[in-house]
Amino acid sequence: MSFPPIRPELAGIEPYGAPQLTKDAAPVQLNVNENPYGPSEACLDDIAASVREAARTLNRYPDREFTALREGLAAYLNTDGGQGLTRDEIWAANGSNEVMLQLLQAFGGPGRTALSFAPTYSMYPEYARDTHTTWVAGRRETDFSLDLDAAVALIREVRPNVVLLPSPNNPTGTALPPEAIGVLCEELGESALLVVDEAYGEFRREGVPSALELLPRYRNLVVSRTMSKAFAGAGLRLGYLAADKAILDAIRVVRLPYHLSAVSQATALAALRHADELLGKVDELRKERDETVGWLRDRGFEVADSDANFVLFGLFEDRHAVWQGLLDRGVLIRETGPDGWLRVSIGTPDEMTAFKTALTDVVKELR
Amino acid sequence: MSFPPIRPELAGIEPYGAPQLTKDAAPVQLNVNENPYGPSEACLDDIAASVREAARTLNRYPDREFTALREGLAAYLNTDGGQGLTRDEIWAANGSNEVMLQLLQAFGGPGRTALSFAPTYSMYPEYARDTHTTWVAGRRETDFSLDLDAAVALIREVRPNVVLLPSPNNPTGTALPPEAIGVLCEELGESALLVVDEAYGEFRREGVPSALELLPRYRNLVVSRTMSKAFAGAGLRLGYLAADKAILDAIRVVRLPYHLSAVSQATALAALRHADELLGKVDELRKERDETVGWLRDRGFEVADSDANFVLFGLFEDRHAVWQGLLDRGVLIRETGPDGWLRVSIGTPDEMTAFKTALTDVVKELR
Repeated sequence: MSFPPIRPELAGIEPYGAPQLTKDAAPVQLNVNENPYGPSEACLDDIAASVREAARTLNRYPDREFTALREGLAAYLNTDGGQGLTRDEIWAANGSNEVMLQLLQAFGGPGRTALSFAPTYSMYPEYARDTHTTWVAGRRETDFSLDLDAAVALIREVRPNVVLLPSPNNPTGTALPPEAIGVLCEELGESALLVVDEAYGEFRREGVPSALELLPRYRNLVVSRTMSKAFAGAGLRLGYLAADKAILDAIRVVRLPYHLSAVSQATALAALRHADELLGKVDELRKERDETVGWLRDRGFEVADSDANFVLFGLFEDRHAVWQGLLDRGVLIRETGPDGWLRVSIGTPDEMTAFKTALTDVVKELR
Repeated sequence: MSFPPIRPELAGIEPYGAPQLTKDAAPVQLNVNENPYGPSEACLDDIAASVREAARTLNRYPDREFTALREGLAAYLNTDGGQGLTRDEIWAANGSNEVMLQLLQAFGGPGRTALSFAPTYSMYPEYARDTHTTWVAGRRETDFSLDLDAAVALIREVRPNVVLLPSPNNPTGTALPPEAIGVLCEELGESALLVVDEAYGEFRREGVPSALELLPRYRNLVVSRTMSKAFAGAGLRLGYLAADKAILDAIRVVRLPYHLSAVSQATALAALRHADELLGKVDELRKERDETVGWLRDRGFEVADSDANFVLFGLFEDRHAVWQGLLDRGVLIRETGPDGWLRVSIGTPDEMTAFKTALTDVVKELR
């Protein structure tokens, strides 16, 4: 055995993560679906004051149950689809990815199976791998919607313990209709969980409901959210979920004690107090997104309908050349999704102009 | 199957964690080995200012490689046993427990074995369980030292992939002699790691070396530390380790991307700038510890030698009654370790006086 004695199935695997380039190398960063708008000075003041206060007892362990934060998150969700959620139905961790890992630790694991439908979020197979959960990916239709009959058939065949469905889907932007969630929850019954990952939930189009509305009807439904996207808090690493209390108690068994630091709790609480401001750009970003979709279609690109703050577009014979051409012009987007497609995050109007100019240029050059 | 469909081996298990009581319920908290001294106003100012600055780009993901923090931690370790460590040999996560979980994800797992020698840190079997690593615990001697011949024999029998050894040991306070570390590293060779968990390393007595000194000699040695204890930062949740670069690259495969938030990085960097202040109480706490050991021995208690900021003492026929008697008098300590023993953390002089008064009282009552 060669050194170090890593598990053989992990040997040679590259760590997950998009390239992190400096502003110098890529002035326009539209690759990881960040919100382009930072917090106001008033919000920064509140964050600083809250952290200062929390740090007075930095020598003590933080509240292991982050009670105030769970209360704040419940109150917020009740303004965006939640039906009278209380803190007892809220869990949080260092990013949605820790939330998902905990879910698979408790409900997946050796001899158990997690199912999703590709194209889907590229971290899911890593959570499965890291928890030794068997990973099965069905297919979405060519328009990236879910064929419900096929999905039910696959569930009957695979008998998954956890079904992971991003809505809106990443990297395609496609939202899941509530009827689909109902059918899948019924099909799974009490022996499996349906996790609807609403990381980009707040960006959904007018009239598209949140899966939070269905929580009172399905005990096996878990809806996850994050403060990274609409809440403009990617640097904060705060993912959370709403679910039945019994599901939370199961997560508590596998969570690392004190996983949320006192400064994370204080910062997230301050951000929640500024929800109006931080979420204030969501409408603007949705408008910019719809405009980007329209602009791309007008120029003959294929574009997936998007309920998120990003747009998947194509089709390119050599998508890597397009990605590289954009980067050469200072615009960093993401080479992800099915062959031939590229994903661009929605930035400021100036950033989107830079993207459009660069894309026009690159396409001309490559023709 | 009953709802929720948690893994059967986890059903009914209580989440890990000491009781978190309010200051009202237990004014003297000596149960989780916290440093009793909080940061100064100057340190709080620096933390607040650093977090405020970092939060300007809270909408962006944090530095996934936390380069500045790794540099700061390397520099600090080089003042306390490290032999020219660079940032390329440093890793960090949300608490030592996330560091340990990552180590077992990369180097443990199904079909692999982690070994320690009991009494040992009570979270270790949980990390093993959560990573499906087989857990084997040998025994320490009655004075809590390690019988090296027996340890080597057990290693030959069990062939562990990871050996976890706290030094000073928790909950006994016993430090591991450097010769033992050398012998175990040689015995394990390149097919297994020895993780020396120096969570309480800075409290070691005069003349007791850190395992960091041995890193240049043993490629399979990992030394972990935390900012929770000597650094008075339990609320910060910052654990870290020093090891060969190749070991770090293996951890990178299983770490969740962006696991350390921008505010955690900023707070830890600010705390490192105030290392002199934060570590300034270590000598006082060591003195208070030695005094507590002496006081207990003078009163006829058995007391384990301690290189940590806590003391294990006994023996009590009914240790729970003693623990409860202390709590009734407002002093919260920890019911942990082998039967008949109790563990008390070292607090301020006033807190230790309260502990001694209460213990005297309880013992009289129970006699």
